[in-house]
Amino acid sequence: MNTVETLRVSRYTNDSREEIEVSLIKEVPLTIFLNGKEVVTLLCLGDQMKELAVGFLASEGFIERSSDIKTIRVDEEKVTAEVETISENPLVSGLFEKRTITSGCGKGSTFYNVMDAFKCRKVESKIKVTPAYLLGLMKNLHELSGLYRETHGAHNVALADLNGIIIFREDIGRHNAVDKIHGHAMLNGIDLSGKILITTGRVSSEILIKTGKMGVPVILSRSVPTALAVSIAEEVGITIAGFARGGSISIYSHGERVGD
Amino acid sequence: MNTVETLRVSRYTNDSREEIEVSLIKEVPLTIFLNGKEVVTLLCLGDQMKELAVGFLASEGFIERSSDIKTIRVDEEKVTAEVETISENPLVSGLFEKRTITSGCGKGSTFYNVMDAFKCRKVESKIKVTPAYLLGLMKNLHELSGLYRETHGAHNVALADLNGIIIFREDIGRHNAVDKIHGHAMLNGIDLSGKILITTGRVSSEILIKTGKMGVPVILSRSVPTALAVSIAEEVGITIAGFARGGSISIYSHGERVGD
Repeated sequence: MNTVETLRVSRYTNDSREEIEVSLIKEVPLTIFLNGKEVVTLLCLGDQMKELAVGFLASEGFIERSSDIKTIRVDEEKVTAEVETISENPLVSGLFEKRTITSGCGKGSTFYNVMDAFKCRKVESKIKVTPAYLLGLMKNLHELSGLYRETHGAHNVALADLNGIIIFREDIGRHNAVDKIHGHAMLNGIDLSGKILITTGRVSSEILIKTGKMGVPVILSRSVPTALAVSIAEEVGITIAGFARGGSISIYSHGERVGD
Repeated sequence: MNTVETLRVSRYTNDSREEIEVSLIKEVPLTIFLNGKEVVTLLCLGDQMKELAVGFLASEGFIERSSDIKTIRVDEEKVTAEVETISENPLVSGLFEKRTITSGCGKGSTFYNVMDAFKCRKVESKIKVTPAYLLGLMKNLHELSGLYRETHGAHNVALADLNGIIIFREDIGRHNAVDKIHGHAMLNGIDLSGKILITTGRVSSEILIKTGKMGVPVILSRSVPTALAVSIAEEVGITIAGFARGGSISIYSHGERVGD
């Protein structure tokens, strides 16, 4: 599916006006079904819909491993992804209930509910990185971001290890881009422990919880975390390296993994 | 409620490391109740919660005008907003159903469902602005953004007329900031027709639909719209002026309202 559309716009600069062609991101509504039941509609870029559906379902707790999945059918025309699992997860009906009281913008009604949803699984990893290595990864992320350079409307997310970037994904939503990485890793049996998640977007509590559910010990961002994200990161053992720009980088939590 | 927290972080630049204090945005989970029923939990900045609750409920179709509201109680400690209406809107139970299949990231499963949700109410306005005036408003928005300058983690949204900015709001989410403006206008009887909505964030279909539900004819963004947002804007009569930076501005839809 083509993810970009061209449009003729009027561009004004000082007193002059010109008609130019620009590329815009398409934004399509992907509806995800699990065992025949509609779960959610995500507004997304329209590529890698299989990965996005699996990553979203994993991140929300509907599936736990790739062997839970029986079939995945993506219909590009209807823009739907239908996932069937081997057996019904007894937790799933509770999760369907839960969605009625949350939104893509929030999970749970207190910090402790957030922690509860996350099941407090501690991320353990002895990975150690230098600030210079992290800054290099951020530079590599920007070099890969063709769609951002073309449209100025995409977020970039990548997964890296100590030898550089392994997977790169883009989307209009930073949550979707992380879910695509999660889905890709699950479908391809990529071990996420000891990896680094890199994002152009801010590190909110939701992004941090997604990182924790993936079991990734380090999140690197061009932008800043919220105070809530830092609290949860301290609790669950995730290193937040952020505000990576202009040759500097700040470490907000679990600094023991960063040093020269 | 204090919206910022200070944190000691390690900042690395080249080979040097320093311990500095930074300000982080807090991010609190506000749970909104309507007539005793839990509707949603929004992760937000934690200020102007009354406005945010009313704006969210209005934007989602739960309330239509301020006279629908009997009481609003905000509990800053529990971080809840309880809204009671004069009478139960017969549409509301349908909306509760609807939330089970959408997320903060999406509404409806196709473009036409989006249009349907929006009820296709056309935004009519004879407002006419110059590109220079719009660029001036964007500059004013940046001048007002103290929290962004302090934390680098907030989106700014403002409402303006032909005499400049009337209301300015910030939040960690661009959706929340727009809802605060909507709520403020509704609670204070501010007529939104003929106004300009200004945002630092991208114009996705959701932001465009919020703008349409407010009846605001012009949206001005520092960033770009998606192709879907432009299609809906053409349909419902909204002018999108975007990519306002470096002394230039592009008009993506309904250009008849912009000229010298």
